[in-house]
Amino acid sequence: MILHRLRNYTARVFEGNGKYRRIGRALDVFLMSLIMVNVVAIVLESVGPLAKQYHHEFLMIELISVGIFTLEYVLRLWSCVDKSVHKESPLTNSKIRIKYFFSPLALIDLIAILPTILMVFVSVDLRFLRVLRLMRIFKLTRYSRAMQLLLNSFKEESSSLLAAFFIMAVVLIIASCGIYLIEHDVQPDKFGSIPAAMWWAMVTLTTVGYGDVVPVTPLGRLFGGAITLVSMGMVAIPTGLLASSFSEQLRKRRQVFTDAVHEAVEDGHLSPVEEEHLENLRYKLGLSQQEANKAIHNELKNRNRNLYCRHCGKRQD
Amino acid sequence: MILHRLRNYTARVFEGNGKYRRIGRALDVFLMSLIMVNVVAIVLESVGPLAKQYHHEFLMIELISVGIFTLEYVLRLWSCVDKSVHKESPLTNSKIRIKYFFSPLALIDLIAILPTILMVFVSVDLRFLRVLRLMRIFKLTRYSRAMQLLLNSFKEESSSLLAAFFIMAVVLIIASCGIYLIEHDVQPDKFGSIPAAMWWAMVTLTTVGYGDVVPVTPLGRLFGGAITLVSMGMVAIPTGLLASSFSEQLRKRRQVFTDAVHEAVEDGHLSPVEEEHLENLRYKLGLSQQEANKAIHNELKNRNRNLYCRHCGKRQD
Amino acid sequence: MILHRLRNYTARVFEGNGKYRRIGRALDVFLMSLIMVNVVAIVLESVGPLAKQYHHEFLMIELISVGIFTLEYVLRLWSCVDKSVHKESPLTNSKIRIKYFFSPLALIDLIAILPTILMVFVSVDLRFLRVLRLMRIFKLTRYSRAMQLLLNSFKEESSSLLAAFFIMAVVLIIASCGIYLIEHDVQPDKFGSIPAAMWWAMVTLTTVGYGDVVPVTPLGRLFGGAITLVSMGMVAIPTGLLASSFSEQLRKRRQVFTDAVHEAVEDGHLSPVEEEHLENLRYKLGLSQQEANKAIHNELKNRNRNLYCRHCGKRQD
Amino acid sequence: MILHRLRNYTARVFEGNGKYRRIGRALDVFLMSLIMVNVVAIVLESVGPLAKQYHHEFLMIELISVGIFTLEYVLRLWSCVDKSVHKESPLTNSKIRIKYFFSPLALIDLIAILPTILMVFVSVDLRFLRVLRLMRIFKLTRYSRAMQLLLNSFKEESSSLLAAFFIMAVVLIIASCGIYLIEHDVQPDKFGSIPAAMWWAMVTLTTVGYGDVVPVTPLGRLFGGAITLVSMGMVAIPTGLLASSFSEQLRKRRQVFTDAVHEAVEDGHLSPVEEEHLENLRYKLGLSQQEANKAIHNELKNRNRNLYCRHCGKRQD
Repeated sequence: MILHRLRNYTARVFEGNGKYRRIGRALDVFLMSLIMVNVVAIVLESVGPLAKQYHHEFLMIELISVGIFTLEYVLRLWSCVDKSVHKESPLTNSKIRIKYFFSPLALIDLIAILPTILMVFVSVDLRFLRVLRLMRIFKLTRYSRAMQLLLNSFKEESSSLLAAFFIMAVVLIIASCGIYLIEHDVQPDKFGSIPAAMWWAMVTLTTVGYGDVVPVTPLGRLFGGAITLVSMGMVAIPTGLLASSFSEQLRKRRQVFTDAVHEAVEDGHLSPVEEEHLENLRYKLGLSQQEANKAIHNELKNRNRNLYCRHCGKRQD
Repeated sequence: MILHRLRNYTARVFEGNGKYRRIGRALDVFLMSLIMVNVVAIVLESVGPLAKQYHHEFLMIELISVGIFTLEYVLRLWSCVDKSVHKESPLTNSKIRIKYFFSPLALIDLIAILPTILMVFVSVDLRFLRVLRLMRIFKLTRYSRAMQLLLNSFKEESSSLLAAFFIMAVVLIIASCGIYLIEHDVQPDKFGSIPAAMWWAMVTLTTVGYGDVVPVTPLGRLFGGAITLVSMGMVAIPTGLLASSFSEQLRKRRQVFTDAVHEAVEDGHLSPVEEEHLENLRYKLGLSQQEANKAIHNELKNRNRNLYCRHCGKRQD
Repeated sequence: MILHRLRNYTARVFEGNGKYRRIGRALDVFLMSLIMVNVVAIVLESVGPLAKQYHHEFLMIELISVGIFTLEYVLRLWSCVDKSVHKESPLTNSKIRIKYFFSPLALIDLIAILPTILMVFVSVDLRFLRVLRLMRIFKLTRYSRAMQLLLNSFKEESSSLLAAFFIMAVVLIIASCGIYLIEHDVQPDKFGSIPAAMWWAMVTLTTVGYGDVVPVTPLGRLFGGAITLVSMGMVAIPTGLLASSFSEQLRKRRQVFTDAVHEAVEDGHLSPVEEEHLENLRYKLGLSQQEANKAIHNELKNRNRNLYCRHCGKRQD
Repeated sequence: MILHRLRNYTARVFEGNGKYRRIGRALDVFLMSLIMVNVVAIVLESVGPLAKQYHHEFLMIELISVGIFTLEYVLRLWSCVDKSVHKESPLTNSKIRIKYFFSPLALIDLIAILPTILMVFVSVDLRFLRVLRLMRIFKLTRYSRAMQLLLNSFKEESSSLLAAFFIMAVVLIIASCGIYLIEHDVQPDKFGSIPAAMWWAMVTLTTVGYGDVVPVTPLGRLFGGAITLVSMGMVAIPTGLLASSFSEQLRKRRQVFTDAVHEAVEDGHLSPVEEEHLENLRYKLGLSQQEANKAIHNELKNRNRNLYCRHCGKRQD
């Protein structure tokens, strides 16, 4: 029975709603900080001299972190059956756990601890495995609204972006074939095959332009010049799509909050329950305290200026 | 008579309408896959070791593909007289065929098979011809909505883009002449003539910046710095034009579908014929199943919210 | 008297209005072609071998062109007093000529012929003078709507662009001072002074990135990385300003034409005088025949659809 | 008493309002010019030969400038208690001075003179200190509307920019780890550690592309090509955010002026007091004389066209 209540308490804290908000957020901040410390440590560990000098410290950070992450993973897996969304679920506990186990966030959590566990138990110590630990940066997805925004942008514009990338692929193939035909005989080491020429084409079409591989014949430079011109168009299309979509996502997010505020202030004042609800929404949407206050302030001001109809509550513009 | 019905059947399948939709789309998918396999094969064949090791396999892919493409080409040319658009045409069959023969899509189909036929029959085996086979990537134009979108964007913005390119040409000439005057004596191998200096100007104005040719004198760097500043403006104009035009094309395409949906749900429900019609339109416009469903769902919801006038059916905004 | 009428005729042709439209445009096309031939010739003449082989041909092109341009210049100066705008001018002929002489377009015409005249009469033959002949590319300004559009964009956004360039200048100075402090001791040949370091800063801030001068110390690379990040912002601001302004200019230009069409079709049909007027406007605004026809077609269609109020003539949206 | 009135006069001149406008602006222009002369001098002084040849001149400029700046600083600190904003302040003079002392603008003023004072009195002569004098470029912030615009843009879009930079940081770490794993063994000098690989990742993700560090293995180039593709998206997001925000700031600034003009012309004419007020506002907002006149002209025209309600004065759109 005690175990049952403990499990329920754990689930509440991870969710961070209601009276568990304070402790839930503290836990979030702690775990985010730990992830960042880990990422910095792994990056610095790749520097030879530092790795030698602070070998012990890096090992301590790693072991403690993995310990905490493992504990977190186990607790999440154990308490997931008590999540509010499963309250009325007809699934058995084990089925919920299996479903949770294969959810993307849980898999990321597992991948974050796996390399170290492998290194410790199987006693392999490969650089590949050590760098793989950086995958735990994806654990931030759970907390980061920015990443969710970007994912939403990609999802919304997926068909347009696919169209843009298809065009890019066609242009890439034409560019690399053209330069291969023209420059192959003069620079066989650099334009030895079409896949090799694709490196030049890619670097040019994205306007990165390293300059390690460049056409040298007059015809090659004429063709290359035409491709640099095309590159401007290639950059323009995804830029326009992503930029407008990202702004749109941010606008929508603010709109959701503004709408909720409007609903809450309809009766002329903010009750503590409404405030609590808005605060939760603000946190979930990743808006800053300042932005939220401004939105609430504006909404109250608009109400007084009769911007909304007193009868039907609809905006009058 | 049998031949006549076969020809009619072929035309229906290529058009892929009505009850031939399923088989028509299957054919589309098959031909698109074949084109992509071909492109990958030709690209990989340019890699020396791979070409030697898998010489036989590449040859098989090529021969089978060209066989299928030739068959497709012949069938399209043969059956084009039975296309629905020609049903009431007063032209004779041979005139329709000649007209089809010189249509862009038919010419692309011909170019796609010509190099291999030349290689086989005339027994020439030039690298140039082998790479020319990549022209069959343009066969995708028939299926790709993305490419049609881009072509439309270019058409719509053609006068603006021409204006932008004219300005770019003038700036290019001024930049290359300036740098030629300044750097010619110090780097005669790199800025030997104005056309040679154009390579630097082009690479700079598009912000690619390889760095294989750079000014070295203080005056040249001052002038070069000014040109890099100008390059930002040069990139800005076509970027803005293309980005907004491409988004506009996508918006229009969705609007066409939404309008069709609106017309279809005007009587309150979707009949099977209407659904069939919408499905065809969706496929033709290249919208995803998900987007289409969302549009239909929104339209039905809007209807219930009286967004459209009950009398005239016009949108009330 | 004959001379007077000839002068008047010349002025009419240069203006290209009314019944002189056809010949005026033919003259425009001829002069534009000649300018372009000249530019191509001067560019090609800078290529050593070509200059030797076709020395005679280049000289012929040059002499004939300068002859024609000189004739054009003299005729324009002579006939400028008969321009329609001066019909009721109280200025004396010589004052009009002096005023015209110092107008930008007339100065460009003079600069276009001056270098060759200097070379012929003063017998100097400097490369500098030869390249200066390229200034005649600016003669195209008279005919190019694109260049006028760009100039308008710059004028409209001048205060915003100045703000952007001021910020860029401050960032440039900070970037070059920082890198000078950090990298001066390690690469005294590349970062020997702040002006020298400005070359790196400029190339980086515009994202051109030649790579001829790069930081090599860890601290320099950290600072350089921060500057590359800033460069994205630096590129963003003028890009956004110019892109939106250029599109706006194009939109306005079309609007002017649409408004004129609307006024012309108000009575339900296009009279020959109205057509003549619209055609002149279309040419002046640099719209394509196709765009103009589409605008007229739309306007007529809108009229039939009662988009404009039958009573007040105002658009109903 | 005389001292008191002098202090009050100084405060008025620094504020430049009312009848002190002319002298206040003259002082602004003088100080801005002096700052610019200083910046140019410091930049040129870093060039070895120039520093030697004009050693005396540079010293003179420096000493005189620092003298003036010190005087300005002292006067500002002394007179700040008489600022209009403090007229009814309950704070004591010393508290106002301490508060002013720690304001950002006052700190910048202090930093601008400190290095030279240190060099003179402590007799140290480090290059670091000499370059630090360039910090006085930030003194321009006081006068520059452009910089205030940029700061506002950053403030408004801070949460969005933070989101974008967070995504960039994650992509940066993934890119540098990937390339480190792939290229470390082949190019240990260039990709020796993850921080070293970050230089490549940063240069690529911002599309600067120096080319001093590039992947050479086929796998590295495949990964690098993918990262160049991602770089287009990375550039797109802050570009879109900043570009739209900067334009928005400029639009708002103009709106503030237009609103003020509207209020001023409500009674049908501009009184001298209203004109004085508008002129002050125009200067404060950094609008050009031309823009301001256009706005006033439009507003008067609109008034005549009854765009504003005759009764309540509100805009009718």
